[in-house]
Amino acid sequence: MSVLFKNALILSGNDVIKDGFLGIEGENIDYIGKTRPEKSYDVERDMSGRLLMPGLINAHTHTPMTLLRGVGSGLNLQQWLFDTVFPIEDRLTREQIKAGVELAVLEMLATGTTSFTDMYMEPEAAIETVLKSGMKANICRPVQCFDPEEKPEDNFRVKESVELYNKNNGAGNGRVHVDFSIHAEYTCTEAVTRYYSSIVNGYSGRLHIHLSETKKEHDECVEKYGMTPAEWFNSLGAFDSHAFLAHCVYVTEGDLDIIKSKNAAIVHNPTSNMKLGSGFAPVSEMLDKGITVALGTDGAASNNNLNMFEELHLASVLHNGYHGDPTIMRPDDLIKMATINGAAVQGRTDTGVLLQGKKADIIALDMTKPHLVPNLDTKALVCYSAQGADVAMTMVNGKILYENGEYLTMDKEQVYRDVERAVAELYR
Amino acid sequence: MSVLFKNALILSGNDVIKDGFLGIEGENIDYIGKTRPEKSYDVERDMSGRLLMPGLINAHTHTPMTLLRGVGSGLNLQQWLFDTVFPIEDRLTREQIKAGVELAVLEMLATGTTSFTDMYMEPEAAIETVLKSGMKANICRPVQCFDPEEKPEDNFRVKESVELYNKNNGAGNGRVHVDFSIHAEYTCTEAVTRYYSSIVNGYSGRLHIHLSETKKEHDECVEKYGMTPAEWFNSLGAFDSHAFLAHCVYVTEGDLDIIKSKNAAIVHNPTSNMKLGSGFAPVSEMLDKGITVALGTDGAASNNNLNMFEELHLASVLHNGYHGDPTIMRPDDLIKMATINGAAVQGRTDTGVLLQGKKADIIALDMTKPHLVPNLDTKALVCYSAQGADVAMTMVNGKILYENGEYLTMDKEQVYRDVERAVAELYR
Repeated sequence: MSVLFKNALILSGNDVIKDGFLGIEGENIDYIGKTRPEKSYDVERDMSGRLLMPGLINAHTHTPMTLLRGVGSGLNLQQWLFDTVFPIEDRLTREQIKAGVELAVLEMLATGTTSFTDMYMEPEAAIETVLKSGMKANICRPVQCFDPEEKPEDNFRVKESVELYNKNNGAGNGRVHVDFSIHAEYTCTEAVTRYYSSIVNGYSGRLHIHLSETKKEHDECVEKYGMTPAEWFNSLGAFDSHAFLAHCVYVTEGDLDIIKSKNAAIVHNPTSNMKLGSGFAPVSEMLDKGITVALGTDGAASNNNLNMFEELHLASVLHNGYHGDPTIMRPDDLIKMATINGAAVQGRTDTGVLLQGKKADIIALDMTKPHLVPNLDTKALVCYSAQGADVAMTMVNGKILYENGEYLTMDKEQVYRDVERAVAELYR
Repeated sequence: MSVLFKNALILSGNDVIKDGFLGIEGENIDYIGKTRPEKSYDVERDMSGRLLMPGLINAHTHTPMTLLRGVGSGLNLQQWLFDTVFPIEDRLTREQIKAGVELAVLEMLATGTTSFTDMYMEPEAAIETVLKSGMKANICRPVQCFDPEEKPEDNFRVKESVELYNKNNGAGNGRVHVDFSIHAEYTCTEAVTRYYSSIVNGYSGRLHIHLSETKKEHDECVEKYGMTPAEWFNSLGAFDSHAFLAHCVYVTEGDLDIIKSKNAAIVHNPTSNMKLGSGFAPVSEMLDKGITVALGTDGAASNNNLNMFEELHLASVLHNGYHGDPTIMRPDDLIKMATINGAAVQGRTDTGVLLQGKKADIIALDMTKPHLVPNLDTKALVCYSAQGADVAMTMVNGKILYENGEYLTMDKEQVYRDVERAVAELYR
């Protein structure tokens, strides 16, 4: 079916088109312009008062942690992680994990996320939900190894990770990408990191890593290996295909040079970095070096939501405050971080921007809300004034998945019942 | 008319009551409890899935600046203020200012603000709108003086400020409070500050001041007078009745001791401080000293909205990040900052908390949104997970002013027409 949106405000590349037309044929955008296309479409929809913009891409999250939303608030990091989060995670069943992913999908669709990059146990539970929901996602089975004696080829996570890739990469007509992943330097051995990196490079795969999130992690790595986490991973071949690095709060100038030279990308998680007291990632320095920086929410336990408009907002104002410079973060860059840079991190060249020929991964913002009036600068409104709840419609591959509070592919009440049961079991 | 809310989650003082009852008789709360009251009410309303909590109090804003939302994004502070904002403000007419206030009221009601403290020109335009809308507000006519030769008794702003107080304080059955105000140290002379402070103290009035917002302002005052802005104002008698101080980003330890000893209050504006690159107010130090700290949005030109849930969220996470300590800001304190502390700053002892005998200034949050599920910790959800758009109902003095997107006292379409005209005139 083909659809023509008319009378829309459209963010197309860097341009803002007023009273524009956007045509969709099947999964793709086949027209964007100020004038009506010659072709006729099956359906025409009046989008007066709506901004059509690319769907947001959450480039680092742990979706099942919606079940831990708000757990351990006010505890320090060690108590929160070791005494609260880990014991709950140890009890999680596959069914509970699936309920957590489904809840996350409801939240992401309602706040304008069309694609997400996940890192968690039981990744096939996430894949099932992604396939059902119509969303896009990059999923991985993170590798860890705590036993320096373990032979890399015996590590069951390595095996599962590769099996996951071989079985599911490209599923759902390309909506599911399978990534590779090493959880972090402090949760993996040198031998497993070297061995697994060579496998990843054989596949030319994307490698999802937590890097220099906390000062403790960064400093302990330097003490242990005489290298920063970025230097350590690089020395073991981990940056030789397509690495992307969550957090990078404590990276050095030299680390950024390595990251740039290896064409690795960074995912900035401002809310999580603030809430957990991790610190300020040097985002303006990353951008100045030409590094691809995307945005993520991290898990709901350290955020405590999956609202990418909040990340966009926080990234927009936070670094100005930290550097004492209101010009340091620019709306053009910020919107790219939340959209096309996320697509790049996911290895998707056909989305993240509204242009002819790209996939129709589109959200519509209701610009008639009082806080979006007057519209003197559309991009500034998106970065500074908008809320996740301004999303009136979320479309992936030309299919509407959410509109005006209603889910077209998910049974919200059923998800809530599943979550209620999971929570009752987990916290009894 | 009397109303009984039933089956509600209720934030009453520090307690969270599940499946509770809240009774309203006229303007006041006359019952809160887990069990049904003996008294019968005219109307009963099922509030299943709703959190009843005190309306938020925006303790520092400049409402007409909604008309400047998004203006000059990406400029440095001097260019933004002197080349962009001030020239527009110089052109503002009373009618345009009124349209800006009305737009602000629509936005505030929809995001759960029941009372605000304003500082702007043409304050009677704001008072008219407050009276019509049913909201509460503290309004002032800020005093400035740039001519050191001017006799204080000749300053027309001083006269207007006192006239405003005498004419309007207590209007709308107490919904309108008139405050006194000196804009800032750098916009007022010593003579006028001393003279005006004595008048304010004669009235035992509240005095609204911008204080140490930027390093430049703070350092230049020290250079000029050999005193910090807090020391300077205190030396002139400005802290001798009820001063409240917006920003306080660069206050010293000694300044905080003065502020505490004088029982002055501080209004923290986290988004504005970040967006403009002003810096990090020492909020945890203020709280540790027992200073009353409230929250504000500042004007929409430096925010760019009036969404108090965003301020609550930003205050919740920002200081953890700055101090590297996830335990530094506690949900109990944060919710007080957004509610009862704002009431204290406004000189209102009958609101800001849901307790029997208090005014029914209540908002209802829709807790059935995916990002508020599961509810493992209600206060954490309010601080970290909620959005302004979760507000399903806003009530002031027992009267519903906003519910499910509809305004009961304001004509939204008329306001939008007025704003459209004002914007066309201002930016032609």
